[in-house]
Amino acid sequence: MEQMDKNGRLKHLLTLDGLSQSCLNKLLLQADQFIDEHQRLRHTDDLKDKTVVNVFFEASTRTRTTFEIAAKRLSADVISVNVATAATAKGESLRDTILNLQAMQADLFVCRHSDSGAAHFIAQQVKPGVAVINAGDGCHAHPTQALLDLYTIRRIKKEFSNLTIAIVGDILHSRVARSEIMALKTMGVKQIRLIAPKTLLPPYIEQTGVRCYTKMEEGLQNADVIIMLRLQKERMEEGLLPSLREYHRCYGLTLDRLSLAKKDVIVMHPGPMDRGVEIDSVVADGPHSVILQQVHFGIAVRMAVMVELTAGK
Amino acid sequence: MEQMDKNGRLKHLLTLDGLSQSCLNKLLLQADQFIDEHQRLRHTDDLKDKTVVNVFFEASTRTRTTFEIAAKRLSADVISVNVATAATAKGESLRDTILNLQAMQADLFVCRHSDSGAAHFIAQQVKPGVAVINAGDGCHAHPTQALLDLYTIRRIKKEFSNLTIAIVGDILHSRVARSEIMALKTMGVKQIRLIAPKTLLPPYIEQTGVRCYTKMEEGLQNADVIIMLRLQKERMEEGLLPSLREYHRCYGLTLDRLSLAKKDVIVMHPGPMDRGVEIDSVVADGPHSVILQQVHFGIAVRMAVMVELTAGK
Amino acid sequence: MEQMDKNGRLKHLLTLDGLSQSCLNKLLLQADQFIDEHQRLRHTDDLKDKTVVNVFFEASTRTRTTFEIAAKRLSADVISVNVATAATAKGESLRDTILNLQAMQADLFVCRHSDSGAAHFIAQQVKPGVAVINAGDGCHAHPTQALLDLYTIRRIKKEFSNLTIAIVGDILHSRVARSEIMALKTMGVKQIRLIAPKTLLPPYIEQTGVRCYTKMEEGLQNADVIIMLRLQKERMEEGLLPSLREYHRCYGLTLDRLSLAKKDVIVMHPGPMDRGVEIDSVVADGPHSVILQQVHFGIAVRMAVMVELTAGK
Repeated sequence: MEQMDKNGRLKHLLTLDGLSQSCLNKLLLQADQFIDEHQRLRHTDDLKDKTVVNVFFEASTRTRTTFEIAAKRLSADVISVNVATAATAKGESLRDTILNLQAMQADLFVCRHSDSGAAHFIAQQVKPGVAVINAGDGCHAHPTQALLDLYTIRRIKKEFSNLTIAIVGDILHSRVARSEIMALKTMGVKQIRLIAPKTLLPPYIEQTGVRCYTKMEEGLQNADVIIMLRLQKERMEEGLLPSLREYHRCYGLTLDRLSLAKKDVIVMHPGPMDRGVEIDSVVADGPHSVILQQVHFGIAVRMAVMVELTAGK
Repeated sequence: MEQMDKNGRLKHLLTLDGLSQSCLNKLLLQADQFIDEHQRLRHTDDLKDKTVVNVFFEASTRTRTTFEIAAKRLSADVISVNVATAATAKGESLRDTILNLQAMQADLFVCRHSDSGAAHFIAQQVKPGVAVINAGDGCHAHPTQALLDLYTIRRIKKEFSNLTIAIVGDILHSRVARSEIMALKTMGVKQIRLIAPKTLLPPYIEQTGVRCYTKMEEGLQNADVIIMLRLQKERMEEGLLPSLREYHRCYGLTLDRLSLAKKDVIVMHPGPMDRGVEIDSVVADGPHSVILQQVHFGIAVRMAVMVELTAGK
Repeated sequence: MEQMDKNGRLKHLLTLDGLSQSCLNKLLLQADQFIDEHQRLRHTDDLKDKTVVNVFFEASTRTRTTFEIAAKRLSADVISVNVATAATAKGESLRDTILNLQAMQADLFVCRHSDSGAAHFIAQQVKPGVAVINAGDGCHAHPTQALLDLYTIRRIKKEFSNLTIAIVGDILHSRVARSEIMALKTMGVKQIRLIAPKTLLPPYIEQTGVRCYTKMEEGLQNADVIIMLRLQKERMEEGLLPSLREYHRCYGLTLDRLSLAKKDVIVMHPGPMDRGVEIDSVVADGPHSVILQQVHFGIAVRMAVMVELTAGK
């Protein structure tokens, strides 16, 4: 598999699909190193003298900021290139853009692109010793987001094999959900449930062993973890959903619905939240919510990935 | 008062209003530390391993640059988030934006927002140990600008109690003027004069002890310090002013008018200047002008504030 | 000459015109210091505690990125100000913008402006000890691009006096070509040939000792170095060229045409390339192409210039 080298070491992080449990565990353990005893993120010299280039072909201030902070906490030089408004405007190809930045001595690319497979393509262009992290490509994958979810679950619930995890929302179009489902299965989660209107569930997905629910009240029963997805308003326009109000009525996470889950259930959301649509504020800000911890752990996880991909190079 | 802790120590810098003379003096003295014997700004490690996040909900390259330079001279990691074009476009609330950035381990927020009170609101959201600097909110306050003016005056005039200070221009809408008038009074300035057309003077302002003048020739008599304000062109459209030419004729700082002030008068302006409108070039570039010194001292003052707010945390 | 001080030391880099061979050689030799034995760019402390300000009055992500990377590899603080969208929008003059940034303790300005002479103007405004690098002004000069071309040629061909160098394309409007021709002559190149349609050749240029060709097949005969220029599409609209297809038919660098040059010819291009217009992909990616090496060496050359201009200040 192209993101691993001959010795089974990670060269790039393009997707979590196909990564072994031991590989995922290694990354999760490394992330622990970047959180100190006061629960603060450490500042280290691991990437001193290295250059991290954020190449965003699609605007995403939030994701870019998380990688920028992670790289700076590792003492890397960080360059952000917003290609949407830059070189491609002069007609340069994606490949030429990457090869030029590589020639400027980039050690690590963090890429976001609206096309599925763009990160794989970029990884094929770079020379040995240069690493690529997929920060989201089309509807395909967003592996660090899925990885930080794994990390959050493991940090709070300790292990995976007893867990019932419900994922709620637009699974069909979610970059996060796809990577996530594969990885949760790899980690040995007892049961994965997908809760969504039929129009937002991928066809044949049940063949992978997950369970699908169209009624939220059924899917949340005794869940240990609830992962809410962001609802993209474009889905309304495409006719896949009747209205935000209707969506909230059927799939919004309210206190009442939360009470159907286990007493120590945790609630996750990749952000940004649409309060009052997919989740009520009283839940988002309540004691079961670990949404801001996800953000915090997300920096540690990205630091771990960056160190893993550049160590010894 | 919410920007002080129980021990009377500054937690945030939201406004100069209510700050004691000793608190202001402490900041001014600290700023001295950041200018070396060759009048150059120092480079220190005071904020090493700390993360400063510039959150600008309103574009201001100039102000953002001053804080970015100040933070970098203190060896902080600096992240700039232009929220106007970012998260809020996806409908995220101001509170969620701040809580997310805080979860990424921001130590200090520098905020600019078009709404009065936004910085106070942000300061209420952050947890203990995280500091907020107001870099301008609505017409309300812009405390580091007022503070650098105090610093400039003190550096050149040594003390405040003998000074007659004239502030000229759109006092009604100026973020700077409000903070400034309060702070100058706290420092014990002998006389504060406001010079403006009646339409640009706040009603009842004379009750605070300042003197108002609509004729510039009267207000400038024997002034030690003249603080010119920027004229925002929107005021014409609102009908508060007849024309730029007319404004210059009545309130532009010319050499002739400057000669009415004391011989060692200093001329200040927060920038950017509209040469030929509120100030003539021969004055702006003349021997009485300390306008570029203000910019220089402004970095030292911002460094002092950043260190004061993060020290020991 | 204004970019040199009394001791013949470079104060600014505004143009290569007028620089002596020994001055150019010094910069080329210094650039060698920034490439290690593994052909990697070094990371040094040469500009630690210094502030480099990129002031771009014209958008150019590629050029700005190269200077940003170079400055960060020297451990400088780097501030990028996109003035197109910033201060000048509030009507501030170019001079005021520069004087303000200087007051914030900028040590080195990297400037790009659409007006010829802007960099010279800026260099006249700054005080002693503050340096200016011209990163492109109008059609006038782009000296670091020309310098990196010299460096690339010297690194691969060792010396200049035996070389026949062909420059192909829109010489009339090229920032690069003008600086380049002067510098190549200074370095003692045997023969410089310009290849372009008559409409894109500067009048009287042959009086400087270069040879002009309108037929590519003639101009490329036995060339040691081919420097392709980017074709700006605006030229079509101005009626100076019939069509891209026609341009490629007459002046595109194809494998066939490349075979007319020496066997060890090298092919250069300042980027970004329009593959299929001025150069075929098989040539751009072929064994004679040193286009990506130019980018790599460009960082070392910019590091050398930055160190030369700030050393001992």
